[in-house]
Amino acid sequence: MTSESAFIQQLRAIATHPAARGLADDTAVLEIGGETLILTHDAMVEDVHFLPQQDMADVAWKLAAANLSDLAAKGAQPVGVLLGYMLGEQDDRFLAGLAEVLDEYQVPLLGGDTVSGDGPRSFGMTAIGTATSVPVPSRSGAKPGDAIFVTGPVGGAMVGFEAMRNAKSGSFSAEETATYRRPLPLLGAGQALAPHVTAMMDVSDGLLLDASRMASASNVTINIETSQVPIAAPEPRRSDALRWGDDYQLLFTANQELALPVAAHRIGSVLEQSGSPLLIGGTQPDPGDTLGYQH
Amino acid sequence: MTSESAFIQQLRAIATHPAARGLADDTAVLEIGGETLILTHDAMVEDVHFLPQQDMADVAWKLAAANLSDLAAKGAQPVGVLLGYMLGEQDDRFLAGLAEVLDEYQVPLLGGDTVSGDGPRSFGMTAIGTATSVPVPSRSGAKPGDAIFVTGPVGGAMVGFEAMRNAKSGSFSAEETATYRRPLPLLGAGQALAPHVTAMMDVSDGLLLDASRMASASNVTINIETSQVPIAAPEPRRSDALRWGDDYQLLFTANQELALPVAAHRIGSVLEQSGSPLLIGGTQPDPGDTLGYQH
Repeated sequence: MTSESAFIQQLRAIATHPAARGLADDTAVLEIGGETLILTHDAMVEDVHFLPQQDMADVAWKLAAANLSDLAAKGAQPVGVLLGYMLGEQDDRFLAGLAEVLDEYQVPLLGGDTVSGDGPRSFGMTAIGTATSVPVPSRSGAKPGDAIFVTGPVGGAMVGFEAMRNAKSGSFSAEETATYRRPLPLLGAGQALAPHVTAMMDVSDGLLLDASRMASASNVTINIETSQVPIAAPEPRRSDALRWGDDYQLLFTANQELALPVAAHRIGSVLEQSGSPLLIGGTQPDPGDTLGYQH
Repeated sequence: MTSESAFIQQLRAIATHPAARGLADDTAVLEIGGETLILTHDAMVEDVHFLPQQDMADVAWKLAAANLSDLAAKGAQPVGVLLGYMLGEQDDRFLAGLAEVLDEYQVPLLGGDTVSGDGPRSFGMTAIGTATSVPVPSRSGAKPGDAIFVTGPVGGAMVGFEAMRNAKSGSFSAEETATYRRPLPLLGAGQALAPHVTAMMDVSDGLLLDASRMASASNVTINIETSQVPIAAPEPRRSDALRWGDDYQLLFTANQELALPVAAHRIGSVLEQSGSPLLIGGTQPDPGDTLGYQH
């Protein structure tokens, strides 16, 4: 098996279109007929992205939320989604959750494909949106002198996942696990921020890892003051909370003098590129520190 | 497990957008910024849509070809594809085949997602195109009095599949199996036909089944003269060839006086709706006849 990053590198080599920067970003930006389209695809696999015992309504919600979060990071307005669905257990629950999330965000289901299959199930979704602000924010625009912000706490999904994993069947608290089960894509915040940010992405694989990716894409170094990062986890778990994904907060850089249009927490600074893309409290991370969820 | 058709029915109930007719068609039609976009998503699962021993380069080709064939049936010009890829064996071969097919059809890879997972692998692809002819052909426009045509022979994929399935490892003929391994999406033919047809779709699940679906969507009855259908299989296998999918020919209806812009075979007639959507040589099919690949 090839590693994900090697595979993406090779994919990029065969992607000749300017929009192929989507491969770095998981998101494509495409000019068509006077509109700027945003396209993104996410897949979820049983045992990897969700627990086999999970309510399929929550899985459907999360699949859509992860896609819509990618649109949020581009400041896009959703146009619709396409679903790739492997039939199996709890199809009715999946449908119920899908209806809930699409209704909540007023996003139509445009089409898709259903397949049969044995073994662990996997689902894919493609979301399409239109840019509300051009140029569309990318992860490559951070500038030395900018500040870096996050819209809200991280670690809530970690707490929820652990509660579900450790619970006897059905005995977890719905509230405690909500961030893991039903993340909220920040479409409104993304649209409000898009005209003002220099770089933006959603935190899907861990705040430190995603900040490091933003720094690499922008050819800068980003210093995160970990004590400034809001967490939705007990303080002794701060280090883990910064490395756990699935929270879908927005991470963005902007001029530090900017009056932000939405509430956000300043968590560090953008510096000239130096030896490491990421500094943690001014210090280079340990080489063995994966910084987040490497999948 | 819900049946596919029941699931699709329920999906349709939660799809409120006009473009949700895509759920019947596997393809969405969307007006954006003065352009008409065509969006389609197809998924392939190991052991269901491809054999575990297959060259992954062929799997990549077929995944892209199946998606591009959906665009062909709409007369669309491809804009790009997004890939959902589960990492595993032969990633380099998958990349090689993907590069080949995208190069052959000059289609850029816009983005996607890679995931890890155990068990049978599955892949998804979304293709985006722009309509070259409006209104976009659908499967619901066939009119009584029209003739029905197919662009070329069916059954070649069946012959190829059986040769591969029965072969000792690696001992099949590349030529004999080409239609199964590397189907050719008929993008040029689709674009040429789009302004002239009353209904069009690609034959992905079997000619008789797909003709029956076209008849149901159009509220007509379609009579197929099976002896007129060109087949790429031995004559004793004619009945199977008409029920086997994966050939990706275009099936379309048009005024019978029309001078067709591409070579095609007239294989039957469109009639007023009667008891059965499909007649085979003037006779209603046996109720136990599945007509094609019900997945």
